[in-house]
Amino acid sequence: MSTPPPGPGPGPGPGVVPSEGPGPLPPLAGGEAGPGRLRPLLDTVLAALAHGAATRNGPLPAGGPTATAGHLLAAAHPVLPDTGTGPHEALRTLVGALAAGAADPAHPHCAAHLHCPPLAVATAADLAASALNPSMDSWDQAPAASALEEAVTRALAAEFYPDRPHPDALVTTGGTESNQLALLLARERHDNQGPVQLVVGANAHHSLTRAAWLLGLPEPAVVPAPSGTLDLAALDEALTRLHHPVLVAATAGTTDTGQIDPLADIADLCEHHGADLHIDAAYGGPLLFSPTRRHLLHGLDRAQSVTLDLHKLGWQPVAAGLLAVADTHSLAALAHQADYLNADDDTDAGIPDLLGRSLRTTRRPDVLKVAVTLRALGRSGLAELVDRTCDCAQRLADLISKHPRLELYDRPTLSTVLFRPVHATDESVATTRRTLLTTGRAVLGRAHADDRLWLKATLLNPHTTPEDLDALLTLVLAEHPTPHP
Amino acid sequence: MSTPPPGPGPGPGPGVVPSEGPGPLPPLAGGEAGPGRLRPLLDTVLAALAHGAATRNGPLPAGGPTATAGHLLAAAHPVLPDTGTGPHEALRTLVGALAAGAADPAHPHCAAHLHCPPLAVATAADLAASALNPSMDSWDQAPAASALEEAVTRALAAEFYPDRPHPDALVTTGGTESNQLALLLARERHDNQGPVQLVVGANAHHSLTRAAWLLGLPEPAVVPAPSGTLDLAALDEALTRLHHPVLVAATAGTTDTGQIDPLADIADLCEHHGADLHIDAAYGGPLLFSPTRRHLLHGLDRAQSVTLDLHKLGWQPVAAGLLAVADTHSLAALAHQADYLNADDDTDAGIPDLLGRSLRTTRRPDVLKVAVTLRALGRSGLAELVDRTCDCAQRLADLISKHPRLELYDRPTLSTVLFRPVHATDESVATTRRTLLTTGRAVLGRAHADDRLWLKATLLNPHTTPEDLDALLTLVLAEHPTPHP
Repeated sequence: MSTPPPGPGPGPGPGVVPSEGPGPLPPLAGGEAGPGRLRPLLDTVLAALAHGAATRNGPLPAGGPTATAGHLLAAAHPVLPDTGTGPHEALRTLVGALAAGAADPAHPHCAAHLHCPPLAVATAADLAASALNPSMDSWDQAPAASALEEAVTRALAAEFYPDRPHPDALVTTGGTESNQLALLLARERHDNQGPVQLVVGANAHHSLTRAAWLLGLPEPAVVPAPSGTLDLAALDEALTRLHHPVLVAATAGTTDTGQIDPLADIADLCEHHGADLHIDAAYGGPLLFSPTRRHLLHGLDRAQSVTLDLHKLGWQPVAAGLLAVADTHSLAALAHQADYLNADDDTDAGIPDLLGRSLRTTRRPDVLKVAVTLRALGRSGLAELVDRTCDCAQRLADLISKHPRLELYDRPTLSTVLFRPVHATDESVATTRRTLLTTGRAVLGRAHADDRLWLKATLLNPHTTPEDLDALLTLVLAEHPTPHP
Repeated sequence: MSTPPPGPGPGPGPGVVPSEGPGPLPPLAGGEAGPGRLRPLLDTVLAALAHGAATRNGPLPAGGPTATAGHLLAAAHPVLPDTGTGPHEALRTLVGALAAGAADPAHPHCAAHLHCPPLAVATAADLAASALNPSMDSWDQAPAASALEEAVTRALAAEFYPDRPHPDALVTTGGTESNQLALLLARERHDNQGPVQLVVGANAHHSLTRAAWLLGLPEPAVVPAPSGTLDLAALDEALTRLHHPVLVAATAGTTDTGQIDPLADIADLCEHHGADLHIDAAYGGPLLFSPTRRHLLHGLDRAQSVTLDLHKLGWQPVAAGLLAVADTHSLAALAHQADYLNADDDTDAGIPDLLGRSLRTTRRPDVLKVAVTLRALGRSGLAELVDRTCDCAQRLADLISKHPRLELYDRPTLSTVLFRPVHATDESVATTRRTLLTTGRAVLGRAHADDRLWLKATLLNPHTTPEDLDALLTLVLAEHPTPHP
């Protein structure tokens, strides 16, 4: 157990650590001195971010996976040197390499996925979460952060469930964890009735099927969604046929097309058949902030639970997931005891017990950036971002539908637009996407619909201009020259 | 679906969003302009952090849960205003309130939990993760970040498994997720042999029991750990009695006392009985970096999988969890397909498939701060931090054992020291902890050992001085005046 006292030691050799004696230790981010220690390091980070973005000079690096990995690995080698290079060199090198090799969602031509450009204000707030490092598993690691989380989750839950007396919400790592929790709560709710049967649309997020596997539940029953939304007659038939207990998972904002299932009709069917309802509104949930679009979510408050990701249409850095529940008492299944974190006598003495708020133990206060964003922008500011982003998708759809060489799949519901060059094959659509990726010109997604493969533009950048949209279409068309010029 | 074009609208009213027309939108963190937009906001954050720490003036706020929540809620109200207050006001108010109400692990008297003070360099690096916002679920959201994660996880896996040809590691949200994944991998490995039986010591982390529940597996068999480490004879007996398949979970650094199970002996027993072995080294894993202490982990590389948290003895902001596995092929059970993220023809064309690296989908690049820290400090710098921290615990144990009014539970193995005032009752020990908490003077933990309740100091701050330790003991003794002065 005993170790030699610090002091001058032998010189470094293979596997030998050079003893640096009682020299200055690397500074901490916290305490009164922390901000002063952080400032010069943040200067280095900002310079490296700017330099990396200028080097990249586009939405993603040119060269494709092999070249990008090669550049990164050349910069990052060796990953664990015997002697450190110091904080400024390490930040300059690795942040610079990461920025140069990023697919930057702040570039208007980076529009493949539900991968949003974070707001500067949310990003700045997130720094404070790292510096203070509260851990949300016990009050004595997060006295103020736990109070903030309670206030923000209650306020957001009330947005989803305005007419319920005790709505609540949990902070998660994203829609995948939220969907998993929703299914877990259903499993526990019906513990004595046999395993819960999950029913999903063919348009539902893959995480639901994965959650059933994780939780040891039967394979989900899949209901067709031929037009991109869950088919009501097929759902009715499935609910008539299946044995209880059943959890139906509907979607408000599908990954492929951004469509919204007929929520109120699905809620009616669930009520009729005595099935539970969960709604995955990871993408579409923030429509609630928009007075002109919230009607699209009609019926949302009839679900037992709702998934929301504020790192999608909420412009937060990852992660900012939520699971809202209609009734806080439904969370009782997550109650958990670990004496070092929530001993009974501490709880009796008034120390809040936080363990039942997550399946994680140690947990970053992702709520801080959300709280700062809600306060900085207000409901009206969020509504404007939501509306501008959805308007942008309408504009792109207009451009496509008017263009003789492009075909539009359908008018967008949210901010996803599927399109393809006329006369293109599925293979040429896939190739176009990959060519734009590997040449560093655009990040577009892909989706199957109506038995064909489409290019998918998922617009999440409210700063995108009409000119940006024109240029994006021009890039696509350049890959599909007219057959008879 | 259609919305009015942006432009001057009606004035604000209840629930009505004031239309701001095409005015300036809140800036983004990314792109070439992002760093310039971030800088003034970061100035506000740093000032709020400094002001909050000065206001708090100690390891945590005075007043206890009710007063702390009251101050926070007063500052944070309303959580979601109709009109935003702007970025600087929101950051100043909420970051300031969070800092004023924090339990700051950078204060040497904040020493209850495995709650480390993050390094400034790691915190600065984490800002870049927020600003660039790569998502680790597909290559086209994280071209360089995915390459960096691969390089760093391979390098760290090789630290754990130096003699294995294909070790690997996954990035997790922490020990809880790592332990859950380890059990899931065991469940899938033995899929056709019936449900896997988890065997844990009474000293194991609570997350293992919770993981068995989550995964739909039988209740774990609990082996006694009367001296704080897993009892070998009892384990032998359990493995003789239990039907296969079995996963034994041993611990390298327990939550209560920081002790390390006899890893090599446990590995022998597992080998003899044909049981799988997982080691939860969330706390103790970084001893590998220290030439003078790595022998304490002898036998670690005989486990199928190992949990490590670099947000404990690795000085990272949360989250920085890892699950190392002896053989990358054992991760095959996590393979997962979702056409929009990893279509077969994209994978065939050389676009890396990332979905099998996590049960999450969207995922923050927590690897960046880890990579920057490894490079900045090197193996020798990390070893020095580990050794200083463990030395600090030895020094505290010395002070306690020499003090006539204090009792030491045992010499520390890692950096956890259990002690109590002589003649104290369990109740007075618990009260002392709560009094120090609610008066804002110290954050100490608690642990049961030898049928008594002890104060627990978990030292994770390498900057802690001998004077800090003296002062901490003085605070405790002041709560236990000598009966006969």
